[in-house]
Amino acid sequence: MLANMNASEPSAPEPTPEEDAALRRLYADFDTENLLPLWTQLGDLMPMHPKPSARAHVWSWKTLYPLAQRAGDLVPVGRGGERRAIALANPGLGGRPFATPTLWAAIQYLGPQETAPEHRHTQNAFRFVVEGEGVWTVVDGDPVAMRRGDFLLTPGWHFHSHHNTTDRPMAWIDGLDIPFAHYTDSTFFEFGADEVTDRSTPSASRSERLWAYPGLRPLSALGSLPNSPIAAYRWEHTDRALDEQLALEDEGHAVTVEPGHAAVRYTNPTTGGDVMPTIRAEFHRLRAGAETTTRREVGSSVFQVFSGEGALVLDGVEHRMAQGDLAVVPSWTALKIQAESRFDLFRFSDTPIFDGLHQARVTVGEDTE
Amino acid sequence: MLANMNASEPSAPEPTPEEDAALRRLYADFDTENLLPLWTQLGDLMPMHPKPSARAHVWSWKTLYPLAQRAGDLVPVGRGGERRAIALANPGLGGRPFATPTLWAAIQYLGPQETAPEHRHTQNAFRFVVEGEGVWTVVDGDPVAMRRGDFLLTPGWHFHSHHNTTDRPMAWIDGLDIPFAHYTDSTFFEFGADEVTDRSTPSASRSERLWAYPGLRPLSALGSLPNSPIAAYRWEHTDRALDEQLALEDEGHAVTVEPGHAAVRYTNPTTGGDVMPTIRAEFHRLRAGAETTTRREVGSSVFQVFSGEGALVLDGVEHRMAQGDLAVVPSWTALKIQAESRFDLFRFSDTPIFDGLHQARVTVGEDTE
Amino acid sequence: MLANMNASEPSAPEPTPEEDAALRRLYADFDTENLLPLWTQLGDLMPMHPKPSARAHVWSWKTLYPLAQRAGDLVPVGRGGERRAIALANPGLGGRPFATPTLWAAIQYLGPQETAPEHRHTQNAFRFVVEGEGVWTVVDGDPVAMRRGDFLLTPGWHFHSHHNTTDRPMAWIDGLDIPFAHYTDSTFFEFGADEVTDRSTPSASRSERLWAYPGLRPLSALGSLPNSPIAAYRWEHTDRALDEQLALEDEGHAVTVEPGHAAVRYTNPTTGGDVMPTIRAEFHRLRAGAETTTRREVGSSVFQVFSGEGALVLDGVEHRMAQGDLAVVPSWTALKIQAESRFDLFRFSDTPIFDGLHQARVTVGEDTE
Amino acid sequence: MLANMNASEPSAPEPTPEEDAALRRLYADFDTENLLPLWTQLGDLMPMHPKPSARAHVWSWKTLYPLAQRAGDLVPVGRGGERRAIALANPGLGGRPFATPTLWAAIQYLGPQETAPEHRHTQNAFRFVVEGEGVWTVVDGDPVAMRRGDFLLTPGWHFHSHHNTTDRPMAWIDGLDIPFAHYTDSTFFEFGADEVTDRSTPSASRSERLWAYPGLRPLSALGSLPNSPIAAYRWEHTDRALDEQLALEDEGHAVTVEPGHAAVRYTNPTTGGDVMPTIRAEFHRLRAGAETTTRREVGSSVFQVFSGEGALVLDGVEHRMAQGDLAVVPSWTALKIQAESRFDLFRFSDTPIFDGLHQARVTVGEDTE
Repeated sequence: MLANMNASEPSAPEPTPEEDAALRRLYADFDTENLLPLWTQLGDLMPMHPKPSARAHVWSWKTLYPLAQRAGDLVPVGRGGERRAIALANPGLGGRPFATPTLWAAIQYLGPQETAPEHRHTQNAFRFVVEGEGVWTVVDGDPVAMRRGDFLLTPGWHFHSHHNTTDRPMAWIDGLDIPFAHYTDSTFFEFGADEVTDRSTPSASRSERLWAYPGLRPLSALGSLPNSPIAAYRWEHTDRALDEQLALEDEGHAVTVEPGHAAVRYTNPTTGGDVMPTIRAEFHRLRAGAETTTRREVGSSVFQVFSGEGALVLDGVEHRMAQGDLAVVPSWTALKIQAESRFDLFRFSDTPIFDGLHQARVTVGEDTE
Repeated sequence: MLANMNASEPSAPEPTPEEDAALRRLYADFDTENLLPLWTQLGDLMPMHPKPSARAHVWSWKTLYPLAQRAGDLVPVGRGGERRAIALANPGLGGRPFATPTLWAAIQYLGPQETAPEHRHTQNAFRFVVEGEGVWTVVDGDPVAMRRGDFLLTPGWHFHSHHNTTDRPMAWIDGLDIPFAHYTDSTFFEFGADEVTDRSTPSASRSERLWAYPGLRPLSALGSLPNSPIAAYRWEHTDRALDEQLALEDEGHAVTVEPGHAAVRYTNPTTGGDVMPTIRAEFHRLRAGAETTTRREVGSSVFQVFSGEGALVLDGVEHRMAQGDLAVVPSWTALKIQAESRFDLFRFSDTPIFDGLHQARVTVGEDTE
Repeated sequence: MLANMNASEPSAPEPTPEEDAALRRLYADFDTENLLPLWTQLGDLMPMHPKPSARAHVWSWKTLYPLAQRAGDLVPVGRGGERRAIALANPGLGGRPFATPTLWAAIQYLGPQETAPEHRHTQNAFRFVVEGEGVWTVVDGDPVAMRRGDFLLTPGWHFHSHHNTTDRPMAWIDGLDIPFAHYTDSTFFEFGADEVTDRSTPSASRSERLWAYPGLRPLSALGSLPNSPIAAYRWEHTDRALDEQLALEDEGHAVTVEPGHAAVRYTNPTTGGDVMPTIRAEFHRLRAGAETTTRREVGSSVFQVFSGEGALVLDGVEHRMAQGDLAVVPSWTALKIQAESRFDLFRFSDTPIFDGLHQARVTVGEDTE
Repeated sequence: MLANMNASEPSAPEPTPEEDAALRRLYADFDTENLLPLWTQLGDLMPMHPKPSARAHVWSWKTLYPLAQRAGDLVPVGRGGERRAIALANPGLGGRPFATPTLWAAIQYLGPQETAPEHRHTQNAFRFVVEGEGVWTVVDGDPVAMRRGDFLLTPGWHFHSHHNTTDRPMAWIDGLDIPFAHYTDSTFFEFGADEVTDRSTPSASRSERLWAYPGLRPLSALGSLPNSPIAAYRWEHTDRALDEQLALEDEGHAVTVEPGHAAVRYTNPTTGGDVMPTIRAEFHRLRAGAETTTRREVGSSVFQVFSGEGALVLDGVEHRMAQGDLAVVPSWTALKIQAESRFDLFRFSDTPIFDGLHQARVTVGEDTE
């Protein structure tokens, strides 16, 4: 009885050389038989609280955009590669194109008059537009205009293509659950039409004309849908909802998350829950000078600054951010947002995964250390 | 063994006078002991399909409104009577103020500068405005403007008062689940402030400023709420949603209920379901000349014509209707709507009660007998 | 402006004779037009808390059973009358065969070798057996033995017949939602086979062989079912569950409802919720000398004493009860149970209706007045 | 415009040396900035259907058990290492102790009179016993006996310890969601008492005495619980449920999964769903000579043979298995089970993760490719 599970227990007797050899033989036999003991792995596998490999990190839009432009010059978009998307590769995740263990975030760039061909996949996807316009995403045949501030959905297994109708390039960010689907071996993919199926360029998609009303739904489509049927959440609504929250706060009503911090969640109007089963999306607006209470939560998220200037303080380290900059917040990282000017941030996260599995946890307050 | 359960079974032997007397004694003893046999009640209690006591009936707005005006001249509004509301009393329901066994529908009339005092009750209530404006309903302290075409909620146990800020009278319809709550003995009531708690007259309520956006909800109020938090569903959205359905139909998309028949359901954005647990509300628009497929459903409903002219055909009987007219459709009544002009109808029903209890049934088609 | 909504407001001026006449004309015109004002009805329709018409009442098994026997001698069972069931007619409900506004409770009696023919209806039904055995209920072709202490389901739209295989009569109680379905006009009925479809007399039904295991379900039937698939909840399990609760209480564990009061709810194993959408069923066991905390709840219920002696105190009035006795507890009635001996009670109620509609309310404690 | 996304597109012109150099510089700059292009990763990240790294593999109990015994001789159980558990390390998963990307499966071995100390963690865990008895698992203070055929739960964040009360060793398998929790950074851990908190050795746990009845639940614990409250699913019930399915099949009723193949799912009686949010557990029994239809499903699973002999055919490769042997079935692997003798198999899987996220997919039939 000699090998000690617990190195930190000083009273355990030292193994004899014979015991040591027997243990080495045992471990070698484990290895041969594709076995591994818990006791040598426990600290890594079952820490006291999440110890993510992913690191807090910021990507600057000023760096990202020119690299995307260079890709635009050198790499054509087409069938096979499918998209000119350049993914954030978290420096803690071993050189994989994963922003976090579960989330993909990329800048996608489409040159003048270019088309990204149609396909579909079980991964859930969205676009968020921090600048520019002129591209239409065609989702299951429905052309959806992309404009600054818009949040656009292409839920799992919906065919989609993108085409730029202008003579200027356009770039935006893509968010998907690619790493999660990859890791859990749940991914299906299918090519669609090589040509854009509907080249019309309406200002509002059919999806919006049918669904984008407060509290109204068509009688022809009842019941709960797994994904939101709203293809585009337009900036004018998001902006107004945030403005009104701050105005109501000024009038004395407790409708903000905390003083000076307005926020909306994008939701599926057929359930009231998240827009897609694996991805939560929100928009936050802080008044100039406001800062949030420090907060940790299970699950990872990505922020993009939409306008203004400020900082994300992540586990005590301040990261200053400006328009277009992207930050990754790994699971259980202490997060505080500080606004210098009025500070508008888009955020997406993998929290719905944890909500459904009863694994969500949040702590709020300075004692989050 | 002689009394026969089944009068229609001719082969059963006639009871002897002794048997007959014994049976009469038994029934008398049942009566003394507060008992009743099933076999004498079965046809009434358990018919092959619903045989409502409530009757299909139409109330004309041209008759209703002047009566409400006369009540306005003769009967003051105040604490005790609470509301100048005049209820539809279904001619089949024995002189009770019940539109159907479960639903209350009334015209409420408020004279110039009048106030209906604050109270709350567990009954769910809404208002629908077929004409006029100038009254504000104050719901838990939030003033909500009432205008033509608006659908307004005062869900159960929310304090509410109404006050007319103008020098013209205003009338609208109230819908509630009073008969259902009364019948099931589930009703609570409480008086509120005698004075209107907030006399401001904003164009949009705080509820709308916080909640009335397509697919957006405030981060400060998550989870499922039993009632919709939207105090007013404005006509401009309803109208546009219906127009777009018909336009999309013209463009070749199957988004209407059936050809020429657009419809929206008012929903709770935190669940995607009905606005209140006991009441469903919808708005239907038929193109001139369109008619619906005949349809029966379990549960009762009330229609009010918002504009246009047409008819409701109820169990084969045509009822012509014009603006403001109200019709009651009892459970399992065969319903067809016919539009002469463009025909706009507001509808509410008790269907959520049956949905939740797995008692909902619908048949669609000419074979609905 | 002269008629006064509120009789209790003494400061209002007396109407002149002319005003009085005008008001009488108005009310007459309301009547002609099938209208009724709220202000004359409010106290009845919207009381401060439920004021049921149904009354607390007790029926004695010693009276019931001989009356059922006499019916057995005089009234044959057969097609048309369908069942020899004698219903509790609440003395407050105007001579209708309704135990409460929503619930039906009856004693059903089947003589030696008699058969009650097959039918089905949308009303949900159960049987509870306080004494005797020898009848099989055949539910959608599955013969289910009935024995003392068993609780048996025939959910809505399941065909069912009963047949007595012995030379002794048997009686039990039937519980259904007949009044609720009747009131809401949601009832459908269909005759089945005139003969029993399976005359075998197995000790356990196929339903039990497939479903009646703790926490196990067949892979061939997944998903949520609206009704429990367990046709019979056997006394041996109910009895043991209650015994164990009291034994665990003796061992120091807080698993009873309150000291000396064990209780189980019969549930649908595919949801964890009530056995049928409209009916809750429970079994309560009090130690000798125990009494429950006074409690009011929205919704009505019926108790049957299974064994022992004690009392139900209803709105302060003590009703002593012995084996087989049935008591009705109207909505919002203050209820306390007192046990002289060990006191076993079966209970059913309409609470699921209110739970689903967010109308459930309970108060617990002496201050329930 | 020169680098080609799509190697398979032959018509694209060859890049010039300058273009090639520019592309190399671009990729190097991507690397510096923690970026990776989609187009070089697509085939791996978004295949047409799941291409798991995990491999189908079988571990023989005859090999496992002696290795566990040797660990019993050499490695004491104690605080720090916590458990003498030896995990299946899937040969495709890079030497990590993961049976599949989401599931942990290990043999745990406890020598005579040994104790594994108390702790808790957010990972969900169960035990399944293929042989032996004499260990009690103490779950939140409740001692649970472990016997052959039993399935025992220690859901997330429940304290638990194990102690062997006999003079013989005992081994069983542990199943957890460790890899999933590790990957998603959602894990919390806490040490408990060093000594067993209750050394009593009851035959049935308090959990079972309170909860393990068909369709009955205590009134003191209502509502939906995230995990099953049944600590032990006993072999006698599982065995009988499977026997009855096959007997009912013999009597002509379609209650089995397919001819000769009976199966039960272990469920949470408060929801009817899976026992724990991340883990599904089932027991399958095949008649001698039976074989299942080939089936693929999203998500991975582990089988352990409980008794009998047969084979798992995985993507066309036959793996013969005997009592105690464990097999891993990666996502989307074609699975057919063949029984030589009566063949009893315990199975657990990660399917609830996919169900909740609308990512579940199944194909059944020979055409599963």
